[in-house]
Amino acid sequence: MSTDVAVKRPKMMSSQPEEKVDWKKRKGEIKETQKKRKEAKLIKELEKQKQHEAAERAKLEQSHDKKGRAYTVSVALPGSVLDNAQSTELRTYLAGQIARACVVFCVDEIVVFDEQGEDVKSVEGEFKGVGKKGHACIQLARILQYLECPQYLRKWFFPKHQDLQYAGLLNPLDSPHHMRMDDESDYREGIVLDRPTKQGQGSLVNCGMRKEVRIDKQLQSGLRVTVQLRKTQAQENKLHKGVVVAPHVPRTEGGLYWGYSVRLASCLSAVFTESPYEEGYDVTIGTSERGCNIDQTTLSPFKHLLVVFGGLQGLEASVDADQNLDVNDPGALFDLYLNTCPGQGSRTIRTEEAILVSMAGLRQKITAAFSDVSSDLLKS
Amino acid sequence: MSTDVAVKRPKMMSSQPEEKVDWKKRKGEIKETQKKRKEAKLIKELEKQKQHEAAERAKLEQSHDKKGRAYTVSVALPGSVLDNAQSTELRTYLAGQIARACVVFCVDEIVVFDEQGEDVKSVEGEFKGVGKKGHACIQLARILQYLECPQYLRKWFFPKHQDLQYAGLLNPLDSPHHMRMDDESDYREGIVLDRPTKQGQGSLVNCGMRKEVRIDKQLQSGLRVTVQLRKTQAQENKLHKGVVVAPHVPRTEGGLYWGYSVRLASCLSAVFTESPYEEGYDVTIGTSERGCNIDQTTLSPFKHLLVVFGGLQGLEASVDADQNLDVNDPGALFDLYLNTCPGQGSRTIRTEEAILVSMAGLRQKITAAFSDVSSDLLKS
Ligand SMILES: C[S@@+](CC[C@H](N)C(=O)[O-])C[C@H]1O[C@@H](n2cnc3c(N)ncnc32)[C@H](O)[C@@H]1O
Ligand SMILES: C[S@@+](CC[C@H](N)C(=O)[O-])C[C@H]1O[C@@H](n2cnc3c(N)ncnc32)[C@H](O)[C@@H]1O
Repeated sequence: MSTDVAVKRPKMMSSQPEEKVDWKKRKGEIKETQKKRKEAKLIKELEKQKQHEAAERAKLEQSHDKKGRAYTVSVALPGSVLDNAQSTELRTYLAGQIARACVVFCVDEIVVFDEQGEDVKSVEGEFKGVGKKGHACIQLARILQYLECPQYLRKWFFPKHQDLQYAGLLNPLDSPHHMRMDDESDYREGIVLDRPTKQGQGSLVNCGMRKEVRIDKQLQSGLRVTVQLRKTQAQENKLHKGVVVAPHVPRTEGGLYWGYSVRLASCLSAVFTESPYEEGYDVTIGTSERGCNIDQTTLSPFKHLLVVFGGLQGLEASVDADQNLDVNDPGALFDLYLNTCPGQGSRTIRTEEAILVSMAGLRQKITAAFSDVSSDLLKS
Repeated sequence: MSTDVAVKRPKMMSSQPEEKVDWKKRKGEIKETQKKRKEAKLIKELEKQKQHEAAERAKLEQSHDKKGRAYTVSVALPGSVLDNAQSTELRTYLAGQIARACVVFCVDEIVVFDEQGEDVKSVEGEFKGVGKKGHACIQLARILQYLECPQYLRKWFFPKHQDLQYAGLLNPLDSPHHMRMDDESDYREGIVLDRPTKQGQGSLVNCGMRKEVRIDKQLQSGLRVTVQLRKTQAQENKLHKGVVVAPHVPRTEGGLYWGYSVRLASCLSAVFTESPYEEGYDVTIGTSERGCNIDQTTLSPFKHLLVVFGGLQGLEASVDADQNLDVNDPGALFDLYLNTCPGQGSRTIRTEEAILVSMAGLRQKITAAFSDVSSDLLKS
């Protein structure tokens, strides 16, 4: 800025006005002034460029914020991990630990796979209760779903059930989509109510707020929906207004973590082949103490990341149990096969611990992968 | 090597023996040979130098292996975390989770501090049982000590106790110093037996092996000792032979992780001031979601690292409860105040989870700090 001032008040205009013009000197002064002007112009241009860059960066960051997160992270593990619990209470608690570990690291999908040859495809059907061995996959999936469901919706979607006998012991997930009655948010999860609505008017939805929400569409009652609430709601109205959006919108547009979906897979290979993403998972990681050192790994940007954990006997046992796979080394199944805890002080890391440890290691690699992209964008 | 061969059988000795000597050619040949010899010598020297360097590196690596790990890692947390457990069984389980998290990351010392103004200095004294609230510090310390103790020594050091009522639920630490009867190891933990020994002969120690170990010293019976076993033991002898070493020797000389010690601190500041290391902790890290982004941090090599975790209300509450501290911001107490899980998907990370997450993040930084040193040594 001082250069700027120098240009506005150039020396030739103010200095030596009464003296006889010394042309040689004058010429020199003019040249000097021109030089300074040029410099100043360059500096100004630089300044402008910098401002422009800063604005671009802000815009990019904003659009990042606004567009939210495009990629997804999935975690897969065998339901058999529940069978390692030493009491029926701890069986439930273990499921809760897995849910929390996944939420802490913003996991979008949890895949529970069978490595014992039971053929389970859904959580429907008869349950033997959370205490019994077997049916571990279904039990784990059910508890994961229960925890993911906002508290105010649970009474509808999770009637009393033996599997949830010890639900009182479960630590809450405390994720952003678990809102209290008066929390403000652009999005909310809700259930479509069974109320007569006039033709052309949308359904009523309970979103766990003091008022119900009238949505834009007429939907089957009992459906769980993601609602985008109007930015401004008239205080005097008896109802809030909102529109139904796809469940990924809070993440992809709002940049919010919006819980996970749960999927059952009848074997390890089905984890890969039955991906809900049309193009499948583009980066897959297997985890094992016999994997490569995570410290020597970097990640490239991805669309759909899958991280797979083994049970008590590791992924080797999961591969062995899968009749569709004729590899011996589980490493062959994945893009990366990683030891996420080199130098571990215990002979064995439990699966529920390994999720926290591995995702903590990968979190930093994921961040790096995507922050490199945004700086690349800035450069180009 | 091919150059070497060329020198040993130079062209001038073997080629054209019957032909008339062409001196000009000969001179050139000699020069050429000399040049080649010089080259070969240089290459030999280079080779030697490389070999020397490789040997040096191997020696350094070996001495690294041999000298083991010089630094220590301590973790501190408030005993009050136990009071968050939702059942008496889970209270025990939580203590086990903490023990395991520390072992997975080779933690050498666990400090349990009081943030509720109870003044506890030892695990001696009356216990109210693991189920009751209060006395959380002592309970936590006792369970940590119980788990750290090799199984074959527990019956001596941990008689039946209400605190250990649910010890059956605890997952084993599976650390290297928890050996099975026939495991081979340079070191073992043992208890000095109450057996009459002749003057000049050392005491007998039970190290959980088929035979007892005669050590070099006569020690008070009932002491827990670390024994370094003789490399070769005569099969026919009724006893093994060994010497008593300081508990840090398996780590500092053997490079083994050898469990943790447990210390009680009556308040947060005592964690720092009552360090068992003469020089205290040279790097201290506080953990909080309000800390600085761990991804932007590097560690320098250290001697004694301390990582401090808060309880339900974070380190703020621990600072508030400590009458010796008149800071408001816990960050002021530490060399680094770190958010070890930027972008967390849950509003709050539980202390037992935060240990795994934070130590996973720090593990990589610690490795980097010390691998830089060894490469620096190699360069110089
Ligand atoms: C109890 S461990 C499996 C131990 C099994 N004996 C083995 O050798 O693989 C359960 C799971 O935790 C994960 N895990 C354990 N240690 C790990 C490490 N150091 N790195 C990455 N994953 C690990 C793996 O997914 C493993 O299948
Ligand atoms: C339940 S949290 C404390 C939450 C408390 N409300 C607060 O805001 O600090 C318990 C402990 O876990 C650790 N912790 C939780 N989240 C963390 C994070 N993102 N980074 C580092 N440490 C964290 C801290 O040591 C914290 O004191």
